[in-house]
Amino acid sequence: MRIEYQQIGVIHSPFNEPEGTPIQSTGAVGVLGTVEIFPEFAQGLQDLDGFSHIILLYHFHRSEGFTLLVTPFMDSVQRGVFATRAPKRPNPIGLSVVRLNKVQNQTLFIEGVDILDETPLLDVKPYVSEFDHYSADRIGWLGQSNRDVKETRADRRFE
Amino acid sequence: MRIEYQQIGVIHSPFNEPEGTPIQSTGAVGVLGTVEIFPEFAQGLQDLDGFSHIILLYHFHRSEGFTLLVTPFMDSVQRGVFATRAPKRPNPIGLSVVRLNKVQNQTLFIEGVDILDETPLLDVKPYVSEFDHYSADRIGWLGQSNRDVKETRADRRFE
Repeated sequence: MRIEYQQIGVIHSPFNEPEGTPIQSTGAVGVLGTVEIFPEFAQGLQDLDGFSHIILLYHFHRSEGFTLLVTPFMDSVQRGVFATRAPKRPNPIGLSVVRLNKVQNQTLFIEGVDILDETPLLDVKPYVSEFDHYSADRIGWLGQSNRDVKETRADRRFE
Repeated sequence: MRIEYQQIGVIHSPFNEPEGTPIQSTGAVGVLGTVEIFPEFAQGLQDLDGFSHIILLYHFHRSEGFTLLVTPFMDSVQRGVFATRAPKRPNPIGLSVVRLNKVQNQTLFIEGVDILDETPLLDVKPYVSEFDHYSADRIGWLGQSNRDVKETRADRRFE
């Protein structure tokens, strides 16, 4: 089954290249960006400005093809791609939670941006602690990683 | 820009119809289900069993078309669709965090399932508190809702 989606907007950030980009929002404290929603979808932004945080789903446009085993930025050995957040996945959908500072017309002003400039946007959802906080008691290989997600930056391995 | 994805598996749950289905995982405590990953993607499951919780991205296959204003299950007035988690969105991508009880071959045994039976799977990612916990201090219209997400069930409004 093939599933077809459409780009609904574009994400702007200070990151033009994967190399040096934070690998999670938690490593992108204070990094500002914007999301431009295409005019035909702007009405769907109504009421969004009440939320402090939003979930962005987007298309990893700089990732070509996929592999089922990847060496993630936080590790030095291969892991199953579904046990990682690496971009080179069968369906290259990225997920970031960012702070929503302001909504102005069809532009979202966001903070905590770990996303490449010009990334095609697929969806925006409100982030709600009551829905989105889970007590994860086991975090697999990440529990053994001696790298700090806040400090780790991407390189060119997934291009 | 059109973006094409492929189904990588199928989600099984006790819910055959939208009506009566929990609207969030937090309302589906103890509800068991499975995810069957198609054989050609099974290698990507390596290392996943170390994680207690996973993020499922899936295609809302029972949602036809979209509207930019929706009356969400938790409210009685229209809201912008991007300020809700309603399925009838421009790109009908669903997101659920579920507990991963066991991985057996290419089957994931999951708990806390708010997803319809036979839902096409798009992606699996590990849920990691350090990446996925944010302190949302404002939750917009949901803060005024007097409905309990744990008790609220879906109806047929988005079919």
